Amino acid sequence: MKKVSLLILAALALAAQTVADGPRYNADGALQLPKNYREWIYLSSGLGMTYGPAASANTQNPAFDNVFVNPTSYRAFVETGHWPDKTTFILEVRNATEHGSINNGGHFQSDIRAIEAEVKDEKRFPQKWAFFGFGRKDVGTPNPATSSCNQCHGANAAVENTFVQFYPTLLEIAKTKGTLNASYLQKSAEAAPAAH
Amino acid sequence: MKKVSLLILAALALAAQTVADGPRYNADGALQLPKNYREWIYLSSGLGMTYGPAASANTQNPAFDNVFVNPTSYRAFVETGHWPDKTTFILEVRNATEHGSINNGGHFQSDIRAIEAEVKDEKRFPQKWAFFGFGRKDVGTPNPATSSCNQCHGANAAVENTFVQFYPTLLEIAKTKGTLNASYLQKSAEAAPAAH
Repeated sequence: MKKVSLLILAALALAAQTVADGPRYNADGALQLPKNYREWIYLSSGLGMTYGPAASANTQNPAFDNVFVNPTSYRAFVETGHWPDKTTFILEVRNATEHGSINNGGHFQSDIRAIEAEVKDEKRFPQKWAFFGFGRKDVGTPNPATSSCNQCHGANAAVENTFVQFYPTLLEIAKTKGTLNASYLQKSAEAAPAAH
Repeated sequence: MKKVSLLILAALALAAQTVADGPRYNADGALQLPKNYREWIYLSSGLGMTYGPAASANTQNPAFDNVFVNPTSYRAFVETGHWPDKTTFILEVRNATEHGSINNGGHFQSDIRAIEAEVKDEKRFPQKWAFFGFGRKDVGTPNPATSSCNQCHGANAAVENTFVQFYPTLLEIAKTKGTLNASYLQKSAEAAPAAH
């Protein structure tokens, strides 16, 4: 009987782990940086991505950005094309190095420059999704609901409030499941060359 | 007793899962592409990385490369700074897109251009590590032991036969565990500016 109890406990602990990757907050509402986000599901990277005018691009000192999502939400998205409540994205910004070891051209990743997060927490945030800046710290303060992050994601995101258009494996899933935002589809159609 | 047996079976199945992410080969020695490598541990990305002369860099059409490693081997490396037998790296090469959605500068990732793998399999390969090219297929043929991949990794790798110098989180672990190759340390010292 003891063995059974121990195994049941172990099974319960494993089950708990699978939903334990949601957001955790301090008493003041700051988001705790998930310590193991590098072991979450990787979505994609960019280098020097620039959402404003091209002239504002930092071409001299571009940064890599790596995006990770909590595994529980990833599995839900693969099944449904939707993000469940408690979905947490981590955006890791890293310096880009050109010359090092045997690399003579292009860029590879070096030190962390900053970390940001996007969280879906329907009860906590009236706008459902919120953005957090960590800088180099392990707690992130929430941006106001009127922040440029909220506004730009709200206007341009491919799925719900997230930039799935930049995550190639998820974009295919969203197309298959039919969960692309109507506003995204409309803008994509306008941007595509007219068929003659 | 039945419950105990079922739970033990479940526990054994879980244990088996944790070592089930090693290499699988066809009868002809070709490596099967692990279907879920995108859910493995992400190590890092580069854009347009060039190991030959800088003049050979493809600056007009650079590619992203994303590196993933099987979770079992990752956990062993975090503990020891060494790669266990059956370690499998997947190198995913993706096209880089500059203009799309709201991106006006820099690059984000789009379609897969090619996939490669590096595998440590001590009994199968006299040189312990082997390299495989998949192209866009789901089976990869092994490169000969004299391939440029083997030679360049053998001469320049930071840890065993792997380019840990380009994986920032693992490089820190290797430094702490003291598992950097002597040849890598010597080249790094020679490349560093002399202390005066």
